[in-house]
Amino acid sequence: MSEKIPYKIYLEEHEMPKQWYNVRADMKKKPAPLLNPATLRPCTAEELGNVFCDELVKQELNETDRYIDIPEEIQEFYKMYRPSPLVRAYCLEKKLDTPAKIYYKFEGNNTSGSHKLNSAIAQAYYAKQQGLKGVTTETGAGQWGTALSMACSYFDLDCQVYMVKCSYEQKPFRREVMRTYGANVTPSPSNTTEVGRKILAEFPDTNGSLGCAISEAVEKATTQDGYRYVLGSVLSQVLLHQSVIGMESKIAMDKYGITPDIIIGCAGGGSNLGGLISPFMGEKLRGEKDYRFIAVEPASCPSLTRGVYAYDFCDTGKVCPLQKMYTLGSGFMPSANHAGGLRYHGMSAVLSELYDQGLMEAVSVEQTSVFESAQQFARVEGILPAPESSHAIKCAIDEAIKCKETGEEKTILFGLTGTGYFDMYAYGAYNDGRMSDYIPTDEELQKSFDTLPKID
Amino acid sequence: MSEKIPYKIYLEEHEMPKQWYNVRADMKKKPAPLLNPATLRPCTAEELGNVFCDELVKQELNETDRYIDIPEEIQEFYKMYRPSPLVRAYCLEKKLDTPAKIYYKFEGNNTSGSHKLNSAIAQAYYAKQQGLKGVTTETGAGQWGTALSMACSYFDLDCQVYMVKCSYEQKPFRREVMRTYGANVTPSPSNTTEVGRKILAEFPDTNGSLGCAISEAVEKATTQDGYRYVLGSVLSQVLLHQSVIGMESKIAMDKYGITPDIIIGCAGGGSNLGGLISPFMGEKLRGEKDYRFIAVEPASCPSLTRGVYAYDFCDTGKVCPLQKMYTLGSGFMPSANHAGGLRYHGMSAVLSELYDQGLMEAVSVEQTSVFESAQQFARVEGILPAPESSHAIKCAIDEAIKCKETGEEKTILFGLTGTGYFDMYAYGAYNDGRMSDYIPTDEELQKSFDTLPKID
Repeated sequence: MSEKIPYKIYLEEHEMPKQWYNVRADMKKKPAPLLNPATLRPCTAEELGNVFCDELVKQELNETDRYIDIPEEIQEFYKMYRPSPLVRAYCLEKKLDTPAKIYYKFEGNNTSGSHKLNSAIAQAYYAKQQGLKGVTTETGAGQWGTALSMACSYFDLDCQVYMVKCSYEQKPFRREVMRTYGANVTPSPSNTTEVGRKILAEFPDTNGSLGCAISEAVEKATTQDGYRYVLGSVLSQVLLHQSVIGMESKIAMDKYGITPDIIIGCAGGGSNLGGLISPFMGEKLRGEKDYRFIAVEPASCPSLTRGVYAYDFCDTGKVCPLQKMYTLGSGFMPSANHAGGLRYHGMSAVLSELYDQGLMEAVSVEQTSVFESAQQFARVEGILPAPESSHAIKCAIDEAIKCKETGEEKTILFGLTGTGYFDMYAYGAYNDGRMSDYIPTDEELQKSFDTLPKID
Repeated sequence: MSEKIPYKIYLEEHEMPKQWYNVRADMKKKPAPLLNPATLRPCTAEELGNVFCDELVKQELNETDRYIDIPEEIQEFYKMYRPSPLVRAYCLEKKLDTPAKIYYKFEGNNTSGSHKLNSAIAQAYYAKQQGLKGVTTETGAGQWGTALSMACSYFDLDCQVYMVKCSYEQKPFRREVMRTYGANVTPSPSNTTEVGRKILAEFPDTNGSLGCAISEAVEKATTQDGYRYVLGSVLSQVLLHQSVIGMESKIAMDKYGITPDIIIGCAGGGSNLGGLISPFMGEKLRGEKDYRFIAVEPASCPSLTRGVYAYDFCDTGKVCPLQKMYTLGSGFMPSANHAGGLRYHGMSAVLSELYDQGLMEAVSVEQTSVFESAQQFARVEGILPAPESSHAIKCAIDEAIKCKETGEEKTILFGLTGTGYFDMYAYGAYNDGRMSDYIPTDEELQKSFDTLPKID
């Protein structure tokens, strides 16, 4: 009889979650509603239904149902690449010589290379159910676009992806994976939309941005019959779907009697972090247990640690609903030397509200230290992490080193959202010593805050 | 009580194999011995020990022990990324509308992206045990070099990789992964070796070849103190380590009462195929059970289906021992339009002998049909396969379609050796309709056979 926790805990299929968990149901103070930018009044289901699939609108507005059934067909798809392993980082612990026990939930073992597939398949499913022809979306680093391409291919839906131009050019392989799954990929800004043409006229040399690609995708969805727009992060529906990460983690930990003290996730728009922490946060909100939650963001795009909590535009073209969130202002552009995702100016409304209530902490880290941690991790744990995920690794290592100093045997859980196979340019820059750090000045941030809408 | 086989069968850690299986122990007629190219007499352990690690030489020459213990430290490393899943291809079966039951053993869920890590970690371990400073090797498509980099990084060994020049240039990201794991990567042919300088003088514009990179790596190993050469395929020791694939498959299938009728693997040097079929072949050799085994090779490099069974050089520089094998002649160069690995002119001596005894079949397939199968597989099974692995997919699909025609409910097992993330150039060519097929003419092969050594 061995009591040793295995290196990897895989749930049995019958142990996999059959429902998503909706953390808003347990929040006493709910996130502020989305506002219609024209009327500045809360968006109605009908208004949102012009942009999003009907069932997803219901999920977006649902603040009361704690659990929402995962449709049978999505459960079947999940079985193709889930459960994802909960890994005990024995080798990293040994290397750090720490008394901390480190676990990570690894979401990179699917072809999209990240957790994004968890929500992509749900959104594609509901689009199919609604009888749509296809969906449009934007992608930055490319993980979301790849995930959506896979999901649409599975349900035989047309998939139109606006890919931020600099990514489109720097990541031809990401583009090729999407094409292999049958997606149509357009560099953004493009001349296929009004908003794209307008931006190109004003900034002919622009490399594009996520906010701009969102505007194009939304326009394309609302001007084609039988199409809707889908989004891979920020929205509450996405956090709902991503709760499968946290629920699997919790079931696996409960099975072995493990309770995490600290739960860490990287934060861009919040899809992974929100999904990972949701069921644990639920226990904290209900007063059943306490945990420390840490959001880790890049020092070059520090929406939680240096942003303001205010209503802001979600996109550059200002066609999307307004959302109250921690934001740097929709005019904020991360420095060109910033590698990987986590470049969004805002943050999930749910996470913003939890952070504002003091239920979650946030730290920012600089990218050379992130790649240093990534390399250290890769060498001992045998997984080449995505730059995004490596933000969480950096923070987990820092916490484990603190445990070494204090002698505390804390249990740390972090989200390893994906793999870095398509980020080797950035790894190359790090390997060659060509990578630099950038922290926006207060003046730069102030200039960006000035782009915030004036809402009373 | 559900009798349904899960989508993915993962063994528990305690069920993982603790020994490798040595198929030669069950072969009545053994593979022919390696010959010293100078004396044309069987290589002694001492001669081989100048090139290879001592313990690996013992394994190479061991034709009698049926099982060899996997050292504890290798077992621990295996737990970092193994067991690999045995997947029931429900979605593919449904898509093909076949009564066949299709299973695949997926070896791509580790950062090297393939099964190569199974032998890399073993070879690095024995090098470390021997107190060596480091090892040298060659890599073509890059899977082996990546795997060895990971293994050497784990044991803190220096790793010098000669990478076929055209791969080095076409796959900068593969190179960057190796560098992230601390390896030193040199494009071959190079001016760092005698044999490299000689080849460069004769063919200054050469793109390099696997045979040439082997020669450079061997020279480098034998001319530096504290170094040995390691190889990722062809050798019997490699098949021994890779038997972990077949053993895990067999344990998982036995657990669920599944018996494969047909076992299929892609074949370049034979490392995956040999590892996958070994324990099943053992049963066949001992007369306990019968299985059909199918080796799948590219029509552009058809060593089993169109080669000759003869002693040949293993490398271009002719510094390695001679091996009796199915070969196209060491002068054979696959067409430039050939994508991915499986470009070696020869074949494992063990597999060659089994094939010669009629215990295994072989088929060759053309690459556009391989990529067609790869795309079909990716879209329904959610894994983007390596071009090499897709040869096995193509054959498995063909066999499943035959079952549909005959109504037979055969059980098919194939090896899915790895992922195609670093092969997107080739996928791009396929997506654009730029990919072509090439089959060498009889005259071309005859010319290449003329390069065979004359051995009585």
